[in-house]
Amino acid sequence: MRPSGRKTDQMRKVSFERNFSKHAEGSCLVKFGDTHVLCTASLEDKTPPWLRNTGKGWVTAEYGMLPRATGERMKREAAAGKQGGRTQEIQRLIGRSLRAVIDLQALGERQITLDCDVIQADGGTRTASITGGWIALYDCLKWMESRNMIKVDRVLKDHVAAISCGVFASQPVIDLDYLEDSSAETDANFVMTGAGGIVEIQGTAEGAPFSEEEFTSLMRLAKNGIGELVALQKQAIAG
Amino acid sequence: MRPSGRKTDQMRKVSFERNFSKHAEGSCLVKFGDTHVLCTASLEDKTPPWLRNTGKGWVTAEYGMLPRATGERMKREAAAGKQGGRTQEIQRLIGRSLRAVIDLQALGERQITLDCDVIQADGGTRTASITGGWIALYDCLKWMESRNMIKVDRVLKDHVAAISCGVFASQPVIDLDYLEDSSAETDANFVMTGAGGIVEIQGTAEGAPFSEEEFTSLMRLAKNGIGELVALQKQAIAG
Amino acid sequence: MRPSGRKTDQMRKVSFERNFSKHAEGSCLVKFGDTHVLCTASLEDKTPPWLRNTGKGWVTAEYGMLPRATGERMKREAAAGKQGGRTQEIQRLIGRSLRAVIDLQALGERQITLDCDVIQADGGTRTASITGGWIALYDCLKWMESRNMIKVDRVLKDHVAAISCGVFASQPVIDLDYLEDSSAETDANFVMTGAGGIVEIQGTAEGAPFSEEEFTSLMRLAKNGIGELVALQKQAIAG
Amino acid sequence: MRPSGRKTDQMRKVSFERNFSKHAEGSCLVKFGDTHVLCTASLEDKTPPWLRNTGKGWVTAEYGMLPRATGERMKREAAAGKQGGRTQEIQRLIGRSLRAVIDLQALGERQITLDCDVIQADGGTRTASITGGWIALYDCLKWMESRNMIKVDRVLKDHVAAISCGVFASQPVIDLDYLEDSSAETDANFVMTGAGGIVEIQGTAEGAPFSEEEFTSLMRLAKNGIGELVALQKQAIAG
Amino acid sequence: MRPSGRKTDQMRKVSFERNFSKHAEGSCLVKFGDTHVLCTASLEDKTPPWLRNTGKGWVTAEYGMLPRATGERMKREAAAGKQGGRTQEIQRLIGRSLRAVIDLQALGERQITLDCDVIQADGGTRTASITGGWIALYDCLKWMESRNMIKVDRVLKDHVAAISCGVFASQPVIDLDYLEDSSAETDANFVMTGAGGIVEIQGTAEGAPFSEEEFTSLMRLAKNGIGELVALQKQAIAG
Amino acid sequence: MRPSGRKTDQMRKVSFERNFSKHAEGSCLVKFGDTHVLCTASLEDKTPPWLRNTGKGWVTAEYGMLPRATGERMKREAAAGKQGGRTQEIQRLIGRSLRAVIDLQALGERQITLDCDVIQADGGTRTASITGGWIALYDCLKWMESRNMIKVDRVLKDHVAAISCGVFASQPVIDLDYLEDSSAETDANFVMTGAGGIVEIQGTAEGAPFSEEEFTSLMRLAKNGIGELVALQKQAIAG
Repeated sequence: MRPSGRKTDQMRKVSFERNFSKHAEGSCLVKFGDTHVLCTASLEDKTPPWLRNTGKGWVTAEYGMLPRATGERMKREAAAGKQGGRTQEIQRLIGRSLRAVIDLQALGERQITLDCDVIQADGGTRTASITGGWIALYDCLKWMESRNMIKVDRVLKDHVAAISCGVFASQPVIDLDYLEDSSAETDANFVMTGAGGIVEIQGTAEGAPFSEEEFTSLMRLAKNGIGELVALQKQAIAG
Repeated sequence: MRPSGRKTDQMRKVSFERNFSKHAEGSCLVKFGDTHVLCTASLEDKTPPWLRNTGKGWVTAEYGMLPRATGERMKREAAAGKQGGRTQEIQRLIGRSLRAVIDLQALGERQITLDCDVIQADGGTRTASITGGWIALYDCLKWMESRNMIKVDRVLKDHVAAISCGVFASQPVIDLDYLEDSSAETDANFVMTGAGGIVEIQGTAEGAPFSEEEFTSLMRLAKNGIGELVALQKQAIAG
Repeated sequence: MRPSGRKTDQMRKVSFERNFSKHAEGSCLVKFGDTHVLCTASLEDKTPPWLRNTGKGWVTAEYGMLPRATGERMKREAAAGKQGGRTQEIQRLIGRSLRAVIDLQALGERQITLDCDVIQADGGTRTASITGGWIALYDCLKWMESRNMIKVDRVLKDHVAAISCGVFASQPVIDLDYLEDSSAETDANFVMTGAGGIVEIQGTAEGAPFSEEEFTSLMRLAKNGIGELVALQKQAIAG
Repeated sequence: MRPSGRKTDQMRKVSFERNFSKHAEGSCLVKFGDTHVLCTASLEDKTPPWLRNTGKGWVTAEYGMLPRATGERMKREAAAGKQGGRTQEIQRLIGRSLRAVIDLQALGERQITLDCDVIQADGGTRTASITGGWIALYDCLKWMESRNMIKVDRVLKDHVAAISCGVFASQPVIDLDYLEDSSAETDANFVMTGAGGIVEIQGTAEGAPFSEEEFTSLMRLAKNGIGELVALQKQAIAG
Repeated sequence: MRPSGRKTDQMRKVSFERNFSKHAEGSCLVKFGDTHVLCTASLEDKTPPWLRNTGKGWVTAEYGMLPRATGERMKREAAAGKQGGRTQEIQRLIGRSLRAVIDLQALGERQITLDCDVIQADGGTRTASITGGWIALYDCLKWMESRNMIKVDRVLKDHVAAISCGVFASQPVIDLDYLEDSSAETDANFVMTGAGGIVEIQGTAEGAPFSEEEFTSLMRLAKNGIGELVALQKQAIAG
Repeated sequence: MRPSGRKTDQMRKVSFERNFSKHAEGSCLVKFGDTHVLCTASLEDKTPPWLRNTGKGWVTAEYGMLPRATGERMKREAAAGKQGGRTQEIQRLIGRSLRAVIDLQALGERQITLDCDVIQADGGTRTASITGGWIALYDCLKWMESRNMIKVDRVLKDHVAAISCGVFASQPVIDLDYLEDSSAETDANFVMTGAGGIVEIQGTAEGAPFSEEEFTSLMRLAKNGIGELVALQKQAIAG
């Protein structure tokens, strides 16, 4: 029995609030239950040094948590003077995941930065960031298309979304909230495209090692969940 | 004529959304027009080293801006590895302003940290932070009172609120938005209590120096505006 | 009664020692009683990036305290690895104050950096820095004029000087020393031009909030004091 | 055809040189072909703050690369003033992997730090670090056992080893060297125990997304390879 | 011929201004010609962690340069966020040199920090710092003696002073100023006690290597010069 | 009697393993007994900013210690966020020493960086770094010569090597190991060329000051030792 009463294959309520920010070229407040992440996409007319004069652009991500997004206040990273290892790991993952569905050549020599800032955390902040980040990225590309800078269809190859699955109380479950996450035996994050291709898999045994069978059942849950998330993304951008 | 069409003594629409955060002991999303700041109050059961064994507590503040809260994306301070001078100036001001209405002895040996994070900026982020911070602080003290830790009436001595005034297009106006702020000749921030006492005044000539008369007219505008803000705070906590 | 025996409207003995430094284009050791600040003006043949190709120059300031300028040794900021919030606040204030009397266009694409280093502190280091910094800046501009780089009269529009006033033992007094400053009820810094225009006002209630009347009496003291400081600056550069 | 001429399921020559370091409680120079990593295990008689008085110990890891371990010299992280995101990701992975086979309670309130320093890099530094780190950890525990501090059998629950697999030139291959790694379509790292349990899986599509079938074939390769690595570890500690 | 017209064995005019600082337990403004260094000695009632409960005290030094102490303005180390290698080298040297004449046991569990801040530089700042630092240290110890904390004679074993010598225009000369220092072929710093014992020697070939004979002639110059410096120290503390 | 049983003028066994690294243009694992340092020379096709367009090149060095190179694990400098004072002192010394035998004009506008990383420490790491660094530098220059970039004979003017000497148990001894180094009364490092010229001398009294006679006897030991080291360098590059 899950603490939230959800079924093992039941995700939390997911919502996307587009154009949350007045200034950004694209933005989305994504909610996976009580996990709320503000994703903004910022266009800059320059690329990183290593891409200059290649005709290619870049998509990158930064991740942060407001100090009291969590149950206990965490030290503000800006005050601490550096981003922690977890922050860097997550923002690298978000960037890789979104680049997987972008044609950098078709984007041209520009950079889009996705800022994913966790307003409130309840587990799954990285998967919400990727899933909501895709919406912000889409809206940024639409903004560019309306100014004849690119064609969205040529730059954006597919949807991408992410979900966590884990073994909680000996059962494979999807979309772990904080309570589940902190006592799960195994925890895996899956990033997949709309076409069902795998972009990234990260599975970790928190306690005892897990078996290939367990892992396969987590992947099955993830596939279904990501299918639902992609359907929700489609609704959101249709709206 | 103000860009927004407001009258010279007309503030933007101000709103307070209490309990915005699930985790914090007190929280408030404050909006001054398009300026949106999330204020959370976090209680910790310890004081800074210099207050140990004095029986006194402490109230402090930290301030941050999401990178794309502004028209152009700003570098993330956590990635830059330090908080800029402007950030430090503002968070010191917020802390001083809130401490002005707190009896630190009555608070006891505890620390409350106000995090003021700007979700969207359109001028006046520091005044919104102070005004909304007071609500978050109030709710945190109520939370403590409900656990018999303190009496709110003994700890919280008064309201405190803040507003900016400035000379724009040769006219004294209240509550400058970004467009006004970036071309104002003079810019002043006022922090006052519910009883009308002055807590902090900061006036700066952006272009030509200003006269005592101009300053006096700004202070008059501020007094009225802060009166209105305190009335709105009272409504908010009554709600 | 003031600890120093001074009258309420009596400043400490103020002196300027020009050309204190062999190397700087302009320099001044300014003393406000036991507060001693070395101000040097350094000319560089470049502007900050945001002014390139605008024809405009820049005047900026940095502030520091020797570790044992104070009663107890403070940690050296270079060893601590960063400048504290107070340092940044003060150096931003000094820079703004001096720029208020400079025509940046007439200065041309150059930068003058004022370094204000406190050799000994006894209250009022920021006001001494601004007042003495003006002398160093003047001498730097004279140095430039003698090399036909600029006309001082076109670049330097007026004098600028600063003084602190506060309510000490229930009485408004001028030019607080450390003893007064650390127990003042209210503390305000005023920056004004030779023509009497206000450049910056910063007033803070250290204890109870203050009234508009109190503030007005502080401003009156400041006006007179700054008048005297400007007269002393005139004598110093006449010498 | 692989650049090295290896078969798709053929790992590079793996060797372990135990007691490479005179000072460390356990140490091992591990080679996966031209990838050479020095692993040292250092015992300290204290735990991290969050474990004090719990009776539990801790195993952690740090990872570094000599600046010229790679084809082009990389900036020294100590000179740059911080550890990069990749470094932090890898050292967190090494720590988690080794803790997966340690009974922290049986270790007692002590910390063992594994330093994995890459002397020469040719792909697979993180998998070599985990595999060789296990040897260093084993020798450190033996050192402790010889001083009656612990029983190795109670603290060390199993072997742990790691290998990378990827799709190179459309074929699943094991143990990618640098040439393969930099042009692989898919890249996955597997960490498993001697008993075949999965500790960590990290799979990333470098180009196009990959399918579940591809992933399954990589996992099969990994299982066999890790079986071989565990056999080599057994030989090494038998020696 | 030396640029300054000095003879090869002639030092610059050396002066010590004791009690330069109102706050420090000991202080001295030392001048070696145009090189001016403010040395303050600050007593703290604690030792570094590694000396706790040993009964021993510690003497340490920090060194800094005001940004415009030199011909061209240097970046402020506090703003740069770290002390450079040269700064650290010099402050370590000053600390070692002064500790060489202190009985740390007789000092007791206290720390004295010598801050040597270069107000104006013209070569030889480290030798002036050591020589003037000894005066500040002496006065700090006298201050302690007058409070019955120590006996100066038991703590301070001897004088210590320092001088640079170098080969300039093929001739061994003493006390190099900036002009000489920047074109000297060889540059050596000597630290010696009043009794003539050598505390530290640092010799560097700036251009071609030097011979033992050259080095011996530099040491002879240094011995005489340090003899003079010690005589001047004796006069200064007699005053 | 020395702890190692060596005679007073007997160095430890010294060996050079050339081409230790697959990637670097030149590399050498140098051993002075149990002190093992990996030196790599990396060629970059650029100079530091201050040498641009001068036709001159640069040779610089960086120094590091693996955390467990020593008896007790030291904090990793990359994790600490900065290089300590000792590290900076040593790497500056290595750079100066190697530049003393290089014709920077003949090198051309290129930079060679020597990385000296201590794999295992037992005293004398800086002298081993210089002595082995020369080999790595030589091999880098040979690599360049084979590509017709330079002539080794025109760039490399001489050998350079270094040794420590000290007074241990009242006797002058050469090449101190850790045991001797930590209890030596006097400790001096000598850097000399193949022709016997002195490049650098650093002598420090660890306890009581030393006399000129003692220093002279240390220098005599050093001369002989460096003669032997240069002979070993010649053998190594002949091999």
